[in-house]
Amino acid sequence: MFSDKHKSAGVVYPLGFTAAGVRAGIKKSGNLDVAVIYTEKEAAVAGVFTQNLVAAAPVRVSKVVVETGTAHAVVANAGCANACTGEQGLRDAEKMAEVAAAELHCHANDVIVASTGIIGINLPMDKMEAGIKAAVKELSREGSVNAGNAIITTDTYSKACATEIEIGGREVRLGAIAKGSGMIMPNMATMLCFITTDVDIDRKLLQEALSEITQVTFNMVTVDSDTSTNDMVIVLANGAAGNAKITEKNADYVKFYAALEEMCTELAKRIAADGEGATKFITINVHGAHNFADAKKVAMSVANSPLVKTAFFGEDPNWGRTICAVGYSGVNIHPDKTAIKFGGIPVYENGVGVQYDAAAMKNIMAAKDITVDIELGLGAAEATVWTCDFSYGYVKINGEYHT
Amino acid sequence: MFSDKHKSAGVVYPLGFTAAGVRAGIKKSGNLDVAVIYTEKEAAVAGVFTQNLVAAAPVRVSKVVVETGTAHAVVANAGCANACTGEQGLRDAEKMAEVAAAELHCHANDVIVASTGIIGINLPMDKMEAGIKAAVKELSREGSVNAGNAIITTDTYSKACATEIEIGGREVRLGAIAKGSGMIMPNMATMLCFITTDVDIDRKLLQEALSEITQVTFNMVTVDSDTSTNDMVIVLANGAAGNAKITEKNADYVKFYAALEEMCTELAKRIAADGEGATKFITINVHGAHNFADAKKVAMSVANSPLVKTAFFGEDPNWGRTICAVGYSGVNIHPDKTAIKFGGIPVYENGVGVQYDAAAMKNIMAAKDITVDIELGLGAAEATVWTCDFSYGYVKINGEYHT
Repeated sequence: MFSDKHKSAGVVYPLGFTAAGVRAGIKKSGNLDVAVIYTEKEAAVAGVFTQNLVAAAPVRVSKVVVETGTAHAVVANAGCANACTGEQGLRDAEKMAEVAAAELHCHANDVIVASTGIIGINLPMDKMEAGIKAAVKELSREGSVNAGNAIITTDTYSKACATEIEIGGREVRLGAIAKGSGMIMPNMATMLCFITTDVDIDRKLLQEALSEITQVTFNMVTVDSDTSTNDMVIVLANGAAGNAKITEKNADYVKFYAALEEMCTELAKRIAADGEGATKFITINVHGAHNFADAKKVAMSVANSPLVKTAFFGEDPNWGRTICAVGYSGVNIHPDKTAIKFGGIPVYENGVGVQYDAAAMKNIMAAKDITVDIELGLGAAEATVWTCDFSYGYVKINGEYHT
Repeated sequence: MFSDKHKSAGVVYPLGFTAAGVRAGIKKSGNLDVAVIYTEKEAAVAGVFTQNLVAAAPVRVSKVVVETGTAHAVVANAGCANACTGEQGLRDAEKMAEVAAAELHCHANDVIVASTGIIGINLPMDKMEAGIKAAVKELSREGSVNAGNAIITTDTYSKACATEIEIGGREVRLGAIAKGSGMIMPNMATMLCFITTDVDIDRKLLQEALSEITQVTFNMVTVDSDTSTNDMVIVLANGAAGNAKITEKNADYVKFYAALEEMCTELAKRIAADGEGATKFITINVHGAHNFADAKKVAMSVANSPLVKTAFFGEDPNWGRTICAVGYSGVNIHPDKTAIKFGGIPVYENGVGVQYDAAAMKNIMAAKDITVDIELGLGAAEATVWTCDFSYGYVKINGEYHT
C-alpha cells in the first residue's frame, strides 16, 4: 500500500523544488486558480499528453518544452481550458510561459504550461499575468497544498502525494499534485498531474519510464469515457538528491521506476474514486485474456457502461449488465468460458448465474470500494481498470456546469 | 414526414394478421407481458439480431426460424430476458415456440420467440404456457395495442405504426410494434421490433432489404451505448395483398423498400426519443466524412458522450464537449476544418467558437428536439445518429431497477 505520510508536502517534498498557488480571478468561485512549481536547478523533463486530436494550446506549447529535454518550471491554471481558442490561444499559452520565465529568470522554453476548465473561451491575460507574478513571489517550500488546490475544478479534493526511496545510499524523493474529475478517460491522461523528483536521471530514460507507466496507470482510469482536450502528466527530475546519475536500466532505474509507478497508480486510483458524483470506487480486473489490449478492452467496456455504473450506484449486484458489456466489448469472448465475481463472490459461471449468499453480497455492494473480477478463460494476460459509479451527482454537476 | 393515421392498428393493419397481448404474471407490475402475432397464411420471414456475443436463448432459437425462410407467428414476453440461462433457457425458448405452435396448429420452427427484461433469471414456464394459450385465444384484428404494451419494459409508451403503399394497383400495407428504452445501442438492434406486411415478396429480397435498412435506421440509435443481449427486428410478409410477387429489384421493390425504410426510421427515432429518462431528442448529422463508417463513428462518439448528453439535459450549448468528443472519436479529423451547428446556428468554426445570438440559442436549447450538425470538411459521406439526453431519470431508472 502506498505510504501517504508526506502527502501535504506534495511537489515540494523533493529537494530543490518550491511551489505556490494564488487567486487570480479566473475561476468564477474566486478560489485559488494559478499554480507555479519551480526548480532553480535545471530538471530533466518528461511528459505525456492527451491523444485527443482537438488538443488545447497549452498541450501544444508544453510538448515543445518536453522535446527540449529540460525545464525549470510549471505554470498552470484552472477555470479556463484555453482549448479551441485558435491563434490567440497559442499566443496566450506562450505568453504564460514568457511571463513566468521573466519572473523566474529562465527561458520561456523552460516553462511547462497547463490549463483546465471551460473549453472555448480565451484566457483573461491581465488576470493571468498578475496571477503568475503573485505566485512566483509566493514560491516556497510550503506551497504544494495551494498549488494543488489551484489546479482542481470539480474535484472534491486535491490529489497529492510524496514518497522516498534510497538509491546508492542517497535518499531520493518523489512528490506529485494531480487533478481530474470529469472528462476522464485518459489516453494519455485526461487530467493534470505534475510530479517532481530530486533523482538524477537521464531524460530519455525518464520519458521512457513515464510513457510505459502511463499505459498501466493513468490510461487505465475512466470516469465518463470522455478523453479531454487538455491534459498532461509531467515529471521534473532536478538531480538534487545527488545520486549517481541513472543512465541505464540498472538496479537504480528499476527502483526509481517502481516508486514512480506506485505513485502514479495511487494517483490514478484517487482520480477514479473522486470521479464527478462518485459514491463508489470500482476496480475491474480482467484475467485470462489473449493479450493486454483485449483485457483492457473488456475492462473498459464494463467500466464505461452506464447501466453497470448506475447498478453499482443502486448497490444492485446486476451481473447481467456486466456480462452484457463483456459480450459487446468487441473482444471475441466465449460466454461459457467467462466467469464473474463481485467482491470475490462468484455471480456468473458456465453461461448462467451462480447462487450466492444475499447477506454477504449486500455487504459487498454497500461498501465504498468494490472489486469486479472477470475471468475470460482464453489466455494469460490481465488488465485492471479503475472507475466509479454513475450517480445523480454526475448529472447535476454536468447538467448545471454552464458555459 | 411519416403518416401516423393507422398507428393503433399496428401489426394488424396488413391483411391476414391478428395479435393479442395478455397478463401472464411475468412482469412484477402485473401489466401485460405476453404477446402473440399470427398470420394463417404462411409469411416470408426476415430477421436481424443482436451482435452481442452473449446472445439470449430466444435470439438463438429465432435465428434458426429465420433460416427456414418462413413463419406463422411471433411469441414474445417482457419482464424476463431469458439471457444467461444456459441449457434450461434454450429449452424454455423452444418450449415457448412449441406451446404456441400447438395452439396455432403450425410447426414450432414457424414461431419466432423473443424476450426482454432482466438478465439471468429463468422464465416461469407455467405462467408462460398459460399466457401463450390465453393470448392465442384472444388473437384478433384489434389486438395490436395490447401486443405492443406486452413487450415494453421501461418504455413510457409502445411504439407502433402502420402505413400503406400501392404496388401494381394493389394496396400493400405495413405495420409494426417496437420497444426499446435502455441497453440501447443497436448493432443490430438492442430492442424488439416486429413488422408485419401483406406484400408478396421473395424472402431473400426481404432479408436483404431488412439488413440494409437496419444499418441506417436501428443501428443509428444510441441511448446509453449498451448493446443488449436479446434484441431483434423481424419482418413477416404474408402476401395477402395479392400483388405480383416481388422477385427482383424492380420498381415495386424500390417502392416497398422505401416504405419499409421510412417505417424503420420513424421507429428508430421514437426509440431514441423515448430513451430512459430522456427529456430531449437529439439528431446528430455528420457531414463531409471520407466514408459512412467514419461519419457514424464521429456521430456515435458525440451521441455516447455523457458530458454532451448531460449538457443537453441542462440546456447548455456547450459545444466544447461536442468538439472534444469529435476529437477523441478515433477518426482522423482536422480541428480547423471542422464546423459545428446547434439548431442551425454556427457555434464552432476554424478551430474556435463562433459568437451567436444568445436569445435564439436559448430557444434552440429549450426545445424538445435538437439537431446538431457536424461538418468534417474531408469528403462527401454523411451519417445521422439519433439519441437523447442523460438525465436524473436515467440514473433513477437504472439505479433503482433491481435484479
